[in-house]
Order: sequence, then structure tokens, then C-alpha cells
Amino acid sequence: MITEACCKERINQETDKILRVVEVASGRAPADLVLKNGEYVNVFTGEILKGDIAVAEGVIAGIGEYKGKEEIDVSGKIVLPGFIDAHIHLESAIVPPSEFARAVVPHGTTTVVTDPHEISNVMGTDGIRYMLAATEGIPVDVEFMLPSCVPATPMDESGAVLDYEAIDKLYKEPRVLGLAEMMNFPGVVGGDRNTLIKLAAASVHGSRIDGHAPGITGYDLNAYVAAGVRSDHECADAEDAIAKVRRGQFIMIREGTAARNLEALLPLLKAGYSDRCMFCCDDKHPSDLLEIGHIDHLVRKSIQNGVDPIIAVRAASLNAASYFGLKDRGAIAPGCLADMVVVDNFEELNILQVFKKGKVSFAKGQVADFELPVIDGALLEHARNTFDVARLEPSDLLKDQPLGIIGMIPGEIITENSGFGDHIDISEDILKIAVIERHKGTGHIGVGYIKGYGLKSGAVATSISHDSHNLIVVGTNEEDMAFAVNKVVENRGGIVVADNRRVTGELVLPIAGIMSEDSLEEVNDALEKAKEAAFGQGVSKGIDPFMTLSFMALPVIPTLRVTTRGVIDVLSQKYI
Amino acid sequence: MITEACCKERINQETDKILRVVEVASGRAPADLVLKNGEYVNVFTGEILKGDIAVAEGVIAGIGEYKGKEEIDVSGKIVLPGFIDAHIHLESAIVPPSEFARAVVPHGTTTVVTDPHEISNVMGTDGIRYMLAATEGIPVDVEFMLPSCVPATPMDESGAVLDYEAIDKLYKEPRVLGLAEMMNFPGVVGGDRNTLIKLAAASVHGSRIDGHAPGITGYDLNAYVAAGVRSDHECADAEDAIAKVRRGQFIMIREGTAARNLEALLPLLKAGYSDRCMFCCDDKHPSDLLEIGHIDHLVRKSIQNGVDPIIAVRAASLNAASYFGLKDRGAIAPGCLADMVVVDNFEELNILQVFKKGKVSFAKGQVADFELPVIDGALLEHARNTFDVARLEPSDLLKDQPLGIIGMIPGEIITENSGFGDHIDISEDILKIAVIERHKGTGHIGVGYIKGYGLKSGAVATSISHDSHNLIVVGTNEEDMAFAVNKVVENRGGIVVADNRRVTGELVLPIAGIMSEDSLEEVNDALEKAKEAAFGQGVSKGIDPFMTLSFMALPVIPTLRVTTRGVIDVLSQKYI
Repeated sequence: MITEACCKERINQETDKILRVVEVASGRAPADLVLKNGEYVNVFTGEILKGDIAVAEGVIAGIGEYKGKEEIDVSGKIVLPGFIDAHIHLESAIVPPSEFARAVVPHGTTTVVTDPHEISNVMGTDGIRYMLAATEGIPVDVEFMLPSCVPATPMDESGAVLDYEAIDKLYKEPRVLGLAEMMNFPGVVGGDRNTLIKLAAASVHGSRIDGHAPGITGYDLNAYVAAGVRSDHECADAEDAIAKVRRGQFIMIREGTAARNLEALLPLLKAGYSDRCMFCCDDKHPSDLLEIGHIDHLVRKSIQNGVDPIIAVRAASLNAASYFGLKDRGAIAPGCLADMVVVDNFEELNILQVFKKGKVSFAKGQVADFELPVIDGALLEHARNTFDVARLEPSDLLKDQPLGIIGMIPGEIITENSGFGDHIDISEDILKIAVIERHKGTGHIGVGYIKGYGLKSGAVATSISHDSHNLIVVGTNEEDMAFAVNKVVENRGGIVVADNRRVTGELVLPIAGIMSEDSLEEVNDALEKAKEAAFGQGVSKGIDPFMTLSFMALPVIPTLRVTTRGVIDVLSQKYI
Repeated sequence: MITEACCKERINQETDKILRVVEVASGRAPADLVLKNGEYVNVFTGEILKGDIAVAEGVIAGIGEYKGKEEIDVSGKIVLPGFIDAHIHLESAIVPPSEFARAVVPHGTTTVVTDPHEISNVMGTDGIRYMLAATEGIPVDVEFMLPSCVPATPMDESGAVLDYEAIDKLYKEPRVLGLAEMMNFPGVVGGDRNTLIKLAAASVHGSRIDGHAPGITGYDLNAYVAAGVRSDHECADAEDAIAKVRRGQFIMIREGTAARNLEALLPLLKAGYSDRCMFCCDDKHPSDLLEIGHIDHLVRKSIQNGVDPIIAVRAASLNAASYFGLKDRGAIAPGCLADMVVVDNFEELNILQVFKKGKVSFAKGQVADFELPVIDGALLEHARNTFDVARLEPSDLLKDQPLGIIGMIPGEIITENSGFGDHIDISEDILKIAVIERHKGTGHIGVGYIKGYGLKSGAVATSISHDSHNLIVVGTNEEDMAFAVNKVVENRGGIVVADNRRVTGELVLPIAGIMSEDSLEEVNDALEKAKEAAFGQGVSKGIDPFMTLSFMALPVIPTLRVTTRGVIDVLSQKYI
């Protein structure tokens, strides 16, 4: 809520700004910057037009013939609006948001819409506030959707439970745009009041609501959309997506690290559905960001697959801006933020320069320096101290009854029920797996067996473990398992590969146990080295040793999972 | 501003509503109403699809196969989303908003966006509050844009001056969507701070800003759009409109009583610009509403002129809803308001039934009864007493020097300078014209001459006089002029045609002097009779005796006008 005095001050500042923009637009004053002699994509009319682009006060003042204090020749180049990622969990990049920005700015990203649900599972609303603070002023605008499903399921022991009241005050934050992906679609469709009240609150606040409902159809889809859910990023094929578009949903076409749907959804961009489509990545791991890119990758791949370049650009800009009500961006037009991407041609889409609010943020292969956000001491203190867990003894992992065996399936995150076991058997690839509650000192430890991971010696432990981010560990012996877990806790979070009570690979993630404070390159290096160590100790090729592990505790994906209370059959929701 | 307790209550109510909608959508409970066996226009995909439309709690719950407590067979018919008028001044209909609703419901209108600037020129913010109250609960949703230009020009003596602070508190009203047409485009482009601060305030409140800038191009257009103005309804031709679309403006295609642009703008709907277009009427007089229709007329005429019916329907629904951020309407889809229009075919577009929030509002040629809004006593008292003016004596209209002669041009509202005169000369068609300040008892009376009106005896007076709505009178002698004016004041507003100190035609408009309290038919009858009287006394055919007169005091249209201070040369802005 804005106070009256503060509001007056803002109105006066805004007037000063508009006054200067009008002076520049009308040609009476020189622009701060002019991109001269280029062509630009007009996302409103679908044309490629010529004209100088004049910038003042961080916004585009006019297009035509202009003079500027600074002029950059872009003749022969094409200027596009900055790219928007419509749905991401920034924490998935494992690096601080400032480092994420450094990674995506060269790819033309100027705005992302994040759902901070990973950190919220650890820190509750402090996690959201941490991300708000950690994204302030970086050269990518970060808008927020409030997590709707913390924890993902009541079976989980997360660091926080966010009901509608917990997040209600956050709707007034200027960068909060709505309620994030409502993953609990069975709850919505089934009429669960505690779920629906979250949608009702978002609606009362005039906010939009994102969806997440793979494969939902017919009456269920009607109910889900009627409840107010207005987008989906879980469409596996065009038929699924078109059914959702017909009911008024917007489709976020996703290319992330875990899930990639562009190829399947290309028909949407080629037929009459493109105005209802935008792009997102959902999650992006460091190596992907470095090697594959971000939203530019979706634009490029779309064009290479025969999509009209202007339609691809529009999905990456205007469509997302319109959906989120971001009236100030998404186009090269007067009054829009001067978020611009200069490319050489549509086929290769080499990004030569990027401008954020009229300032060069990327040029000549370099990201421009920027001031790092300052995070409030108490928030930082909370973020760095999210472990409340006793030292693990190997004996804590011994159980005197047979335990369920989770059967991994190569290339999938679903698992099968592989029966029961009562001891580790390396020759049969039956290892021990455990999840240790780490938020509230409950001492809860769930133990089971896992088949198919391949480890031949030592243990692998991580505090990235969806969605609650407890400690998860798999090993060939209890001593190394306890050692690896205790080392992760000592590091205040991260990944440890251990062998014979020695660290063989390690990534330190002291922010909520899920994010580093180091650079993207350092994190990627450490991660790749830890992977090598894990593979060196036998982890099966074709498995991501840490990412696969991080899904084994999520009791919403069939068939067997392990939680802080033991092995659970997801379909019956019963511990076995 | 919503208090916390009130917010909680609303969230709980909204949850109850969603819960019931979900039960119906999922097929577990019968719908309140089902439209069976029809086809409907899917504005998202551009398809005509089949399916039962199930309604619960006033919204569309689902489309598919449904059972309802009430079922209406619409086989062979086409269901369209309710029509939206993107820009209207409701006061122009001269009837109470409830009567306006009664007139447009049969035409399929379910939402209008009004700019109450006529009444605001008389009553200030009380005028806006009056219109908010007078539109509560009628079967057409009335959304508001806050008047940006009251008075239209500082040369005018209006009943109120609304600066940005005066309207600032109204942004929080739930039905206020933004700032209405910024007519003072020279002020915007010229960088006038008092004008720009209104745009800045709207922007700080996150509101949209409508434009009104006929013929503006190039640098001026850049400046106007860069200042934040996002729509225009004053496009005279497609070239003008496309230039505005290119810069990001939305185009409101207008067919009103005073201005009609559809034919000129048809190319926009036929080429790739249709998604940036919506429909409006700006102003509609009673006879037009009765004889020509409303937004349905634009849809019908578009289709008859070769526009794809779905594109025409989309311009009348989804496009306007999207522009105004009305996420709950504009389509036949789950979660949208059950605002629906049933037609027989696209060619004739005969409207058979209309539903507002799932209730029949029009069927079998009849508008369903509805409860009239109750207007707060003090507001009503203010609205009914807006005249503070002394009794006019014929001698008040005598001046002892030559006065400017306004030369009317047939079929135009612009005028020419016809020199000076010092007496009425009926044989030369030189009549006396006067504007009498009527809001604040200033005693200001401006007198001049007018040529081309045609009156041969008596006088015509009206308190509809744009934009300030002072009293304007034209006559063949001072006695009848004073008599007609005094009669208008006695009536607390309206139109009087007098001859030989006798009323020959009369329309009583006691609400702010510009709106009736009677039915549309009664108002239309009285108006037509008064017109006959005026024509009977000689007013030239081809002139609307009252509408033409109502523009003669607006000192922004060239060449000569008359204000409360005398005859003014609009181009030099000097009294002559």
C-alpha cells in the first residue's frame, strides 16, 4: 500500500521523467542514446521497419529520425524487444540471481518471471523476501509469482507451510504479479477448500494465476480453468495445448533442463494460436545456461524449425508482457522500456548487443558491470542458517526390518516398485537411500533401498531435494552416507560425493542449502567435478547423479519415493 | 483501499463461489443454466465450436456435455460473448444509465467503459460518484475511466476544475480502470506539466490511459504515445490508425451519433491489425440507440462489409477486455462471466437472447426487469440543483458595440468568421446568440451573432453545451431568448424552444442539466417534438437544432465560438 505522501512524490518524479521523454520524443532535446540506421521488429503490426530508436530516461522515446548524446550505428542489424522468460524458478540455476543475470544477459533476456518456490520450501516468506532483495537492480528485471504449493504435498516435511494468509501481504509488492503455478490440480478439481482459497485470494487481489496441469482434459480441465487458472507450461503435445487455448489459457512453451516441449508445440506457433503462446524455461541448470542459452534458444530453434521470425519474437516479448499486464515492455515502441536486443540475422540469431533500460548490458562479448544488490542482514543470516539437524551417526541409518526398494527407470524420473530388501548389495546394485529432515530438528529419518543408481563405493548426499529440500543420501555403506550428509550440513548446504570418509567431489550451497554464493563458472566447475567423482565411483551413465537423486524424495511422482518418514507408495499415498 | 477484514470476507465469499463453479464444471453438480446444443464463437482460437455452455454463479463453468436446473435449447443458433463498448460518455444518451441499459441490452451490450466527463464538467467528482451510483447493478456492467480534461480548456467556465489531485482517490474504486481520453494533446506534446502530471498519476496507479488525438503524426505522435497514452478513438482513416498501431496504441473504431469511422477503418479489420482494434460509440443519442443500435451495429456492418465474423466478434469482446485488463470477460470460456449473446446468423446478426452474468436480460423482444440503483440523497440533491444563475432579463442581452458573427457551415461543426454585426437581421439569417454562465452565479454573459441557423421566430435554449454545459441560446429577439433561458433554468436543465413567450417544444433534463429522469422513449418523443418545433420556426434542414447549438460554445473548434465572455477566435484564442 502506498502512502499518500510517497505517492505524491512518485507522481512528481514520474512527471519529471515523462516531461524529459516528451522533450526527446518531440525532437526538442537530444536523446540519451540513439540506435541509428537499423531495422526493428514491430511486434504490433508484424512488420520489420526502419528507423532510429531514440532513448531517454530508460524508455524508448520515439522512432524516426533522431539525434542523441550517444549514437550507436546498427545498420544492417535487426533490433528486437528484450526477451521475457514467463516462468522460471531462479533457484534452479544454483547461483545467486546476479550471477544468473550475468549468464542470461548475453542471451538477450531482459525480464524473467520467477516463482521462488524452492527457497520458500526452506525459508517460507523470508525466502520470497530474500529473492526480492537479491534481484533488486540487476540487469534483468525479475518479476514474481507467489508460490502456491509450499509444501508440494502434505506428505512432505518442508521448512515452511504457506497457506493463503501467509502470502497475502506480498501481493502488494510492486514486483509481485500473481499466484504461481497451481500444481495441486487434483485439489482444485476435487474442490479442496484450502486449495481454492489461494485462487480466490489471488482473484480478489486482481492477480493472475499460473497453472501446471500436465495432461488434464475434459471436465477436469474445465474445472481447473473455471477456478481461475489462466496459463499452463506443462503441455506435452499440441492437442493438449490447443484444448487449453480453447478454454482461454495462455501456453508457456518450455525448454528447460528437465523438460523440453518446443518441438512438440511448434504447431501452435505455426497455426492460429501463436498470440496465446509465450516462452519459458521453468528451470535451467548452470551448464545449460552456459552451453544452450535461454529464451534466445527458443526463438532461434523456432525460427530454424520454420516458425515466422516475427511470431517467435512476439512469443518471446509482447505476448508474455500482455499476459502479465506489464504494460511498459515487450515491444520497440514509444513509452516502452528500452530493453533491446541487437542481432545479425534471424537464422543464426547471433546476439551482438543487449540494452537494459537504455544502458548497454552486453556488447563485444562482455556483460557490463553492475552493482550487486544489498541484502538485509537478518534475511542473509536466515538464508545462511537453514539447517537444524543433529549430527548423523551411521547407526541412525540401520533399520531392523525389510524396507522398500525404489526401482529407478533409465531416462525417467518415475520409478517402479522393486520389492523389499534388508541389506545393501552392490553386486545387485541395491544401495541404501535415506532422507533426513533438516529444517526443524525433528530427527525424522526415512530409510529405504534403491536399485539402478550404479554407485559402487562411497556415498552421494545433497540438500537439493525437491520440493522440501531435506537431506537425501544414497550410499554403499552407512559410514560414508553419514560422512557425506554431515559434510553437507557443515557446508550449510550443497552436494558431497564421498568415498571412504573422504570428500571426492563437493559443491557448497550456503544460501538456503540450495544456492551458491559463487560465480556461475565456479559453480559449474565444481558441479562437473563432483559429477565426474560420482561417475568415477560407479554411478550409471545416463543418470544425472544429483538431479535424479533430487527427485527421489518428491512423493507426488509414482511409484515409490522416500521421505523423512520412509518409503512411500505414491499411488496409494501409504508408507510401506 | 480494502481493509484486511473486508478482504478476508471477500476471499471467503469468492472461495464459496469458486467451489460451486468447480462442482458444476467437473460435472458433480447441475449447472444453474445450460445453453444446449448450440455453436459458439471461440475468440481465442478463431473457431466456431459445438458444446453445451454450463453456467454457475454467473460465470461460465464449462463447455461440453452438461445438465442444468434450467436448460435452454439454442440448436441452430450461435452464441457470442457479450459486446463491450470501449469508450462512451453515458450522459450523451440524455437518459439515466438504467434507461441506457434498457436500450442497449437488446443489442447485446453487456459492458461499457464510460468517461463521465460531461457530468464532471457540471458537478466535479460528485458527477463521477453520481454515475458510479447510477450504474450500480444495472444489467450492463459500467466501468469507468476518470475524466482527464475538465474543463476542456481554461477558456471555459465549467462547474468544476479537476486537477490530478481531485481525481486521485477515485483510482481505487473497483470499477475505475484508468484515465480517460487525454484530449489536450497539444498540452502533452508541448510538455505542459499540469497535463503530464495527470498521465504520471495514472501511470503510478498502474492504470491505462486513453487517447484522443485526431490526425497527430510523426514526432508529435511519438511524444503523445511515449507519455503513456495507449489508445485512440479519433482515427479518421486507416493510415492514421496504422501509424498509431505501429507505435503500440490500440484503436477504438467508433460509430457514434456525431462521428462515424468504421467504413474508413475497415482495412484494419481485414489486414493484420485486428487484434489491436476494438469498438466504441463515444456518444449515442436516443434516436440512434433506438434506430441503429449499438456495438452490434459495428459487428453487423463489419461483417456485411466483408470482415471475418470472428474478427468482428473479437473486436467487440476479447480485444476490449484484454486492453482494459478485464480478465473475467470477453469470451465464451470457463471462468468468464456468463455474458452471452445468442444470434441466428452472422449476416443479419439478429439478436435473439442476451444473458448477463448467466441471467436472461433479453429474450422474446423483452428486456428483463431489474432493480433500479439507489442513489445517495446528497448526491441526488446535488445532481438536481446545478443552476446558480440570476433570472435573465432581455436587456442583459443588449450590447452597445458591434459583435462577432459566427458563420455556420452546413454539415460541419467548424465555423467561419462572418465579420461583425450590431443587430438581428432575420432576412439575412443573422441571429443573436448568447452563453450564460450557470454554475457559479458569476453573471458572465457572452453575446454575439450567428449566421446560418435559419430560425425565423422565437428562440432555442439548451443547457447541453459542450463541454462546460453553460446555458446557450439563439434567438430572433431578446425577449424570447430570455424567456427560453429562464424556462430551462426553471426546469433545472434541458432544452426549450419558445415563440412569442410561449414554450413550443421542451425537454426537461434535471440531472446536472444534461440528463433526464424519464424513459428513453419519453425523452426521444419530447426531443423529436422539440426538433419539429424548432424546424417549424425555421431552423435550416440539415442542421440538428440542438446538437449543433451544443458545440457553439466549445472554444477548441475553429473558427469562431461564443463563451460566457463573448465571441472568441479559436485560432488566436482571443476575444474579438
